[in-house]
Amino acid sequence: MRQSQLFTKTRREAPSDETSKNAQLLIRAGFINKEMAGVYSLLPLGFKVVNNIKKIVSEEMERIGSEEIIMSTLQNKETWKKTDRWSDEKVDVWFKSELKNGNDVGFGWSHEEPITEMMKSFIASYNDLPRYVHQFQNKLRNEVRAKSGIIRCREFLMKDMYAFCATDEDNMDFYKKSTNAYMNVFKRIGLGDITFITSASGGFFTDKFSHEFQTICETGEDIIYINKEKKVAVNKEIYNKETVEKMGMVLEDFGEKKAAEVGNIFNFGTGKCEQMGLYFSDKDGVKKPVHLSSYGIGITRLLGVLVEVFADDKGIVWPEFVAPFKLHLIEILSGKPEVKEKAEKIYKKMGEANVLYDDRDARAGEKFADADLIGIPYQVIVSEKNLLEGKLELKNRKTGEIKMIKEDELQDLC
Amino acid sequence: MRQSQLFTKTRREAPSDETSKNAQLLIRAGFINKEMAGVYSLLPLGFKVVNNIKKIVSEEMERIGSEEIIMSTLQNKETWKKTDRWSDEKVDVWFKSELKNGNDVGFGWSHEEPITEMMKSFIASYNDLPRYVHQFQNKLRNEVRAKSGIIRCREFLMKDMYAFCATDEDNMDFYKKSTNAYMNVFKRIGLGDITFITSASGGFFTDKFSHEFQTICETGEDIIYINKEKKVAVNKEIYNKETVEKMGMVLEDFGEKKAAEVGNIFNFGTGKCEQMGLYFSDKDGVKKPVHLSSYGIGITRLLGVLVEVFADDKGIVWPEFVAPFKLHLIEILSGKPEVKEKAEKIYKKMGEANVLYDDRDARAGEKFADADLIGIPYQVIVSEKNLLEGKLELKNRKTGEIKMIKEDELQDLC
Repeated sequence: MRQSQLFTKTRREAPSDETSKNAQLLIRAGFINKEMAGVYSLLPLGFKVVNNIKKIVSEEMERIGSEEIIMSTLQNKETWKKTDRWSDEKVDVWFKSELKNGNDVGFGWSHEEPITEMMKSFIASYNDLPRYVHQFQNKLRNEVRAKSGIIRCREFLMKDMYAFCATDEDNMDFYKKSTNAYMNVFKRIGLGDITFITSASGGFFTDKFSHEFQTICETGEDIIYINKEKKVAVNKEIYNKETVEKMGMVLEDFGEKKAAEVGNIFNFGTGKCEQMGLYFSDKDGVKKPVHLSSYGIGITRLLGVLVEVFADDKGIVWPEFVAPFKLHLIEILSGKPEVKEKAEKIYKKMGEANVLYDDRDARAGEKFADADLIGIPYQVIVSEKNLLEGKLELKNRKTGEIKMIKEDELQDLC
Repeated sequence: MRQSQLFTKTRREAPSDETSKNAQLLIRAGFINKEMAGVYSLLPLGFKVVNNIKKIVSEEMERIGSEEIIMSTLQNKETWKKTDRWSDEKVDVWFKSELKNGNDVGFGWSHEEPITEMMKSFIASYNDLPRYVHQFQNKLRNEVRAKSGIIRCREFLMKDMYAFCATDEDNMDFYKKSTNAYMNVFKRIGLGDITFITSASGGFFTDKFSHEFQTICETGEDIIYINKEKKVAVNKEIYNKETVEKMGMVLEDFGEKKAAEVGNIFNFGTGKCEQMGLYFSDKDGVKKPVHLSSYGIGITRLLGVLVEVFADDKGIVWPEFVAPFKLHLIEILSGKPEVKEKAEKIYKKMGEANVLYDDRDARAGEKFADADLIGIPYQVIVSEKNLLEGKLELKNRKTGEIKMIKEDELQDLC
């Protein structure tokens, strides 16, 4: 894409009420727009990064057999009353309003209940199990305080997946498969080394237990205790002698870290389906409740975590597979038409989808600063000087390393 | 995809409170799930059709230079007060709620105001114009009566595009380009022949005029007057001698038809930007208000219109480029393993993404009835009898025509 056509511009300053690093940089670089506290829109560059993350997550969810759907935002009170989660005392993040006929309506902050209700139309016998479904949903939560930029929002994109199984064994089988799929996701988006599967308490709404995926991050809201060697961690809430001993370790094996929760998985056992009335007939015709587990990844939250983890003092640094473009092609203005011609040629050859081409009528210094702020992994500089040498300048945004390359070598980067 | 793995099943009956043909068929065939009156979720087959429509719309919008973004659902009262459209007297479809701090919050039923507000960060001079942006947004509207199935919903997916231009001329230029892009969309999804661009009144919020795209459809909510020869139409509201004479025609040139509005385009002139405070400096440094036009297509509504227009007494009939799959491969169970082997071979060769493979343990009659209800354009029947003849049976869902083909000929269909 031509940068002259991108409607966003970089800014020197983020809004004064924005204190988090992730939102400050994402706003300054033109990835997001702040609508109000805890509510952000995705601008073209942010939209691209989110799509790249979604694509990776989709592939991993489909690989383990999940089907994609999209549930509604508007929520039916009757459905949620079945588990007593309509109540504002039980769930304190509901947004609610009224239909024109005076009936209450809610706005989806989670979707276990409507998905389980919907499944009652499709699950009747053991032949209909297991079933796995997922969606990318815009969740709305009436948080008291929206802080940490796009890491904790009132509106955010979440991938939520639900597994409906006949037995505890099948459920646990899928739980393990999903855990692996989740670790693949975090590896592919560049957070594999610093993301840990963390034991956590189940909370009041789970039968048994839950796990979180926590990414080590200085601005994270959670405290976790990590055993680096074994790549496991424990959430602060349940970190004690008893817990770690159950895991076959001792307290000394763990170190304290700040972390951001990027995913979570719950096992509801049969509790949720019993409340909702989702039963199946087993091979002997016996009616049994379905086992349910649920699996979340905070998609827009990941955008914020990636910024927090990788940004440096010059701006954002995107890992390769989520970056909005592979290359940032920077044309250094000069009197010579050859420079523009070369830049145009490279732009066309490498493909509009791969390249953000800074064709703007701007000074070199401004272009370099903007490129560093936006954070595309490789910057290719086309200048009169470089052309005289028959080479191009390639800068690695992350390491800052600059080398002279031949045009042909660019192919390896896309 | 293997039909045995699809979690949805066809149903004999739609919910008793569902009176529209489109929702009845879409529910019975497993494309959508009814959450409450006027609110539907998209199940895997429906999700695929919507994605196919979105892809076509995206391509046409990008071709005319629009950039994709996604605005928030949560709406800031202050932004909407600038045009007096926060008021329930002025806009009677708002859903509203309260933040924890007592501040009002709205839920997006349209996005002209927040997009114009956001653009104030990026448009300052004539150099920054024109700018075109679009999004696929889940709109929420508190309709008094939700009827016509997914044609008029309380929650629906809409593509909305906004053009910000320096002059009326540029604005009208893009208006024409968009009109062509819209007609391309309707052509590509199979509605070209029966969709008309229709003059309509501006309504209180437009400066000048608007056009609708109306698809002839017996269950449509609108009445339009069509000149088939010239491929133009006039909305009932403004159909009179004066209007048609302004168009250089007479009343006798027009015939009355029922139609469903599938798209609309508005010219706001400079009115909206003056209200919102979006100005730019022209070449002489003079401050001028930006011209705005907006462009909508009802994406999930199209799903309903396609069903209304093409369905027959056996079920849905999808046009080729929006169908959830290209082929419905139907294996007729027999004692011979060769039948399953052949079906499996075809499934793998044609690709999982192209084929819905009915590998279920079910009778031929049930499989045929389900295939007709689901409405994939071509049905390929693999049976013992066909194999003996060295051929496959190919049924065209729309025409009902059946012919015997060689396996190689299948390639032409994908």
